[in-house]
Amino acid sequence: MQQAADNPVADAAAARVTALDLPQAPLDAATQAYFDKCVEKIGYVPNVLLAYAFDLPKLTAFAAMYNDLMLAPSGLSKLEREMIAVAVSAVNRCYYCLTAHGAAVRSLSGNPELGEQIVMNYRAARLDPRQRALLDFAVKLTETPHAVEEADRAGLRAVGLSDRDIWDVAAVTAFFNMSNRVATATDMRPNAQYLTQARTPAD
Amino acid sequence: MQQAADNPVADAAAARVTALDLPQAPLDAATQAYFDKCVEKIGYVPNVLLAYAFDLPKLTAFAAMYNDLMLAPSGLSKLEREMIAVAVSAVNRCYYCLTAHGAAVRSLSGNPELGEQIVMNYRAARLDPRQRALLDFAVKLTETPHAVEEADRAGLRAVGLSDRDIWDVAAVTAFFNMSNRVATATDMRPNAQYLTQARTPAD
Amino acid sequence: MQQAADNPVADAAAARVTALDLPQAPLDAATQAYFDKCVEKIGYVPNVLLAYAFDLPKLTAFAAMYNDLMLAPSGLSKLEREMIAVAVSAVNRCYYCLTAHGAAVRSLSGNPELGEQIVMNYRAARLDPRQRALLDFAVKLTETPHAVEEADRAGLRAVGLSDRDIWDVAAVTAFFNMSNRVATATDMRPNAQYLTQARTPAD
Amino acid sequence: MQQAADNPVADAAAARVTALDLPQAPLDAATQAYFDKCVEKIGYVPNVLLAYAFDLPKLTAFAAMYNDLMLAPSGLSKLEREMIAVAVSAVNRCYYCLTAHGAAVRSLSGNPELGEQIVMNYRAARLDPRQRALLDFAVKLTETPHAVEEADRAGLRAVGLSDRDIWDVAAVTAFFNMSNRVATATDMRPNAQYLTQARTPAD
Amino acid sequence: MQQAADNPVADAAAARVTALDLPQAPLDAATQAYFDKCVEKIGYVPNVLLAYAFDLPKLTAFAAMYNDLMLAPSGLSKLEREMIAVAVSAVNRCYYCLTAHGAAVRSLSGNPELGEQIVMNYRAARLDPRQRALLDFAVKLTETPHAVEEADRAGLRAVGLSDRDIWDVAAVTAFFNMSNRVATATDMRPNAQYLTQARTPAD
Amino acid sequence: MQQAADNPVADAAAARVTALDLPQAPLDAATQAYFDKCVEKIGYVPNVLLAYAFDLPKLTAFAAMYNDLMLAPSGLSKLEREMIAVAVSAVNRCYYCLTAHGAAVRSLSGNPELGEQIVMNYRAARLDPRQRALLDFAVKLTETPHAVEEADRAGLRAVGLSDRDIWDVAAVTAFFNMSNRVATATDMRPNAQYLTQARTPAD
Repeated sequence: MQQAADNPVADAAAARVTALDLPQAPLDAATQAYFDKCVEKIGYVPNVLLAYAFDLPKLTAFAAMYNDLMLAPSGLSKLEREMIAVAVSAVNRCYYCLTAHGAAVRSLSGNPELGEQIVMNYRAARLDPRQRALLDFAVKLTETPHAVEEADRAGLRAVGLSDRDIWDVAAVTAFFNMSNRVATATDMRPNAQYLTQARTPAD
Repeated sequence: MQQAADNPVADAAAARVTALDLPQAPLDAATQAYFDKCVEKIGYVPNVLLAYAFDLPKLTAFAAMYNDLMLAPSGLSKLEREMIAVAVSAVNRCYYCLTAHGAAVRSLSGNPELGEQIVMNYRAARLDPRQRALLDFAVKLTETPHAVEEADRAGLRAVGLSDRDIWDVAAVTAFFNMSNRVATATDMRPNAQYLTQARTPAD
Repeated sequence: MQQAADNPVADAAAARVTALDLPQAPLDAATQAYFDKCVEKIGYVPNVLLAYAFDLPKLTAFAAMYNDLMLAPSGLSKLEREMIAVAVSAVNRCYYCLTAHGAAVRSLSGNPELGEQIVMNYRAARLDPRQRALLDFAVKLTETPHAVEEADRAGLRAVGLSDRDIWDVAAVTAFFNMSNRVATATDMRPNAQYLTQARTPAD
Repeated sequence: MQQAADNPVADAAAARVTALDLPQAPLDAATQAYFDKCVEKIGYVPNVLLAYAFDLPKLTAFAAMYNDLMLAPSGLSKLEREMIAVAVSAVNRCYYCLTAHGAAVRSLSGNPELGEQIVMNYRAARLDPRQRALLDFAVKLTETPHAVEEADRAGLRAVGLSDRDIWDVAAVTAFFNMSNRVATATDMRPNAQYLTQARTPAD
Repeated sequence: MQQAADNPVADAAAARVTALDLPQAPLDAATQAYFDKCVEKIGYVPNVLLAYAFDLPKLTAFAAMYNDLMLAPSGLSKLEREMIAVAVSAVNRCYYCLTAHGAAVRSLSGNPELGEQIVMNYRAARLDPRQRALLDFAVKLTETPHAVEEADRAGLRAVGLSDRDIWDVAAVTAFFNMSNRVATATDMRPNAQYLTQARTPAD
Repeated sequence: MQQAADNPVADAAAARVTALDLPQAPLDAATQAYFDKCVEKIGYVPNVLLAYAFDLPKLTAFAAMYNDLMLAPSGLSKLEREMIAVAVSAVNRCYYCLTAHGAAVRSLSGNPELGEQIVMNYRAARLDPRQRALLDFAVKLTETPHAVEEADRAGLRAVGLSDRDIWDVAAVTAFFNMSNRVATATDMRPNAQYLTQARTPAD
């Protein structure tokens, strides 16, 4: 359908992205520009943004936090942040986040197997000690947050992380413990594009 | 000390609020105004805000999401949102959040026992069916997010929640699954004021 | 009401202290004297005693064991025994015991924050190595009794405990694993006095 | 050795019954009579009594509570109380209690297979609805005490239990949650006699 | 390399398929024919067969059981058996089996999304009641085998399964609880071909 | 009945050995010989074989794998393999396997107490370091297969196991994770003979 191709937002809304019936709010100029930029850069608006679009203050707050955590400068690389996202989502078995961020790990690493391994069991991946420490911390903070203590922070310092880096590991881990639960609680559906994205190794 | 009374931010920073050494960023006017308003209204700046103040974009994003979820209009009362916050934090055994939001439940309900009960075991509280359904959903979404399905949403609809209300239950639950983990991962310390706040029943 | 002030036992029985309808047995002289002494010293009869008072042999056996474990001479201080009681009750999320023994920790330590921390997550408290070893042992024996072995006893010996002290840690931990279950199984209600007791730091 | 046969207490003490070195206290007349009666009736003093015999007040309190719970009149038969003891000890994997009380179930029921089934997995036994309800309640109260509520008490009432019977189920379950932990924490060794006792079906 | 293309067995052995150094046994004619048939039909010998090839009786027994369970006539379709394999392997987080059998679900169903959903969280898949009952039974038998009882078998009968079908569900579930543990215990590596297989929907 | 004594297979089939109604297939000569040999050597056909006898290919595959794992030459003694079987079955609380293989440990060790200890809690047994390492590995692989890694294999190497021995530990552990689930899923009943077998210490 010609119109849909021109207007992916309306098209995605037509196919409901969550189990909740929450009609999209009229988009303000900034949000429309943000969505347009998504379509321009990646070809679609991620469904999580459409899910939040019933209420612009909620969408704006979510996007601000997400973009700061995942895209702003940090001692953690973007790939490391995505690896944490997937390891956390694997503990929580979140279909939306594993699909979307599994694709991101495949893309950013150029290594499709790595994305699959972290979805399935990060212990099966051949990680360097820093990556392993990041994921061990993220998984423990996800599974037994009450048991995280100074020894766990020391484990991160031992592979070279600064206090600011430790904050970022904690904050990314914590963020996906939030997102996983919003996605599962609302039965959020991932965009179909993630399924086939970056399935072959980069050259 | 006179100066501390005049400048609670500097005072709180002096007594480190987390286990991480992250010096406070220079506050911009908006943040300074926000902190001043906190002091004016409740007598102190909550330590969670001081913990984020090493990086203003992070602080701003956190505060925007928090204020929207906990203070903006919603089909859930402010007390119900705080009850969810405490029930979630009890599962995750988060010292900071149980202290701060336990005080909020005591204050908003005028019932100090209710705050204690939700900290200790919400099943011991005498809740009405709607409150019980909210906390059952929040606790399940916290403990076993992967197992939340349509039947759980139906349980909320059965006590009168709209789809928008269900989003809010999910979002508040999810938010504290994030905050609990940032607080525990950084050993965040609550303000001393929470300890004695609203310990006697309201008249 | 004048009469109630004179006869707190009858008053408390009127307000049922458990979910079970078990009328109080006629008190013999020794039990009446014990209850009178409670009222004289602390102003009330703890509801757990009223709960057992439907059968005097059960009450007597319970009180004998309780008083021996918590009040008789031991290598563990009374505060240490109460800290164990609260740490165990926190694992089991026992509303009655957390309320009553949380108050005891606040009173005996003169540190209201310490009581709250052990209720919420003992790992957040600033414990000395001996206290930490006691609570680590008590929590492991509560959560995974089958996994306690010589290495765990060695952990207690390493902070100076004798074999007799180890018995006492085990016995207090075990006792509250019993009491927590009697209290929860019968929906036992704590006396209102615990709620406000020792909420402000001792001078 | 002639002397050992005449003095099983000394003999058992010689072979330490726990991992703790706690010399037996001089026995008072009542305790000596109690031990003599054990030897007369069953041929030995149960090691749990020897384990407590380092301190007579502790031994007396333990024996008083045990004898009241397991031997005094109750709406629960002695076999039912022993079945609960074994089902609880199976959850906690307590070697001492499974050995001693598994033998008791075999003896009292005249059905050796029943004892084995409750040790291994009570769901494999062919229980009548009342027995099944007793063990379901006991196992839930052992595994997740915080989740026991009115619906669980209603399950016991549905198979005919009175409020007093419910107390007894709770109290026996709770008692073995205590005993299991004292036994495991001290590596208590069962008397050898339990091993071969009642292994063949009663006629 | 020409030779490797002609001799995939030797090639795969060169790249060790497990963490154990177990040289391949000389293949007898039947095994060589089996491996040749694998190469002819799917282009490679599955690494699990190479892992067992250090000992031909073990390989033969494994292959006989696997082929009977997964390929012989059954009231369960081949796709249903593969869906069970993946749901079980997801609980056990087995990298080898999720990779190999996830590919099988994608291939047999012609629905790549279905394979991903069962790897990630089968509750997110749009299953018909029979498929859902199969996977619910398989997951319960994997997670808490001791709790499976007549009511669980009744759940399978309610969607039309015969007693023979119930055996097959149990046997396939049980088999992958075995295979998952052999694979993880030996760090078994899946063939690279699974990664890209059947990633696009069938026409 | 005379005939039953002569024909234990028919007799056992008459008393159904599982909850499934699966009539025995006509036995081929090899299977009949296998069953005859069981009767000749141990006096009965183990019920697990009768359970599989509704389908001869399944029975043959099961028996081939079982006999290879438990009876063929291995660096693990037959007793060690049976100890692993029992430790695994204890985690999974499998009534059939604990009964049958508990008897095997009693018989092979000549130590009835050892069999009971591994059924109840293998940590209570006095094991040598090699036995302890075997059972620790088997229990971890059973409880948390996803967490088994190189460090666990190193633990086996440290007590002298070869790579081939490690395979055998893994394979026996894995096999009983399969058998436990087939037995529980079908409510398989053990032969009565196991109950009384080897209950007294060997001379």
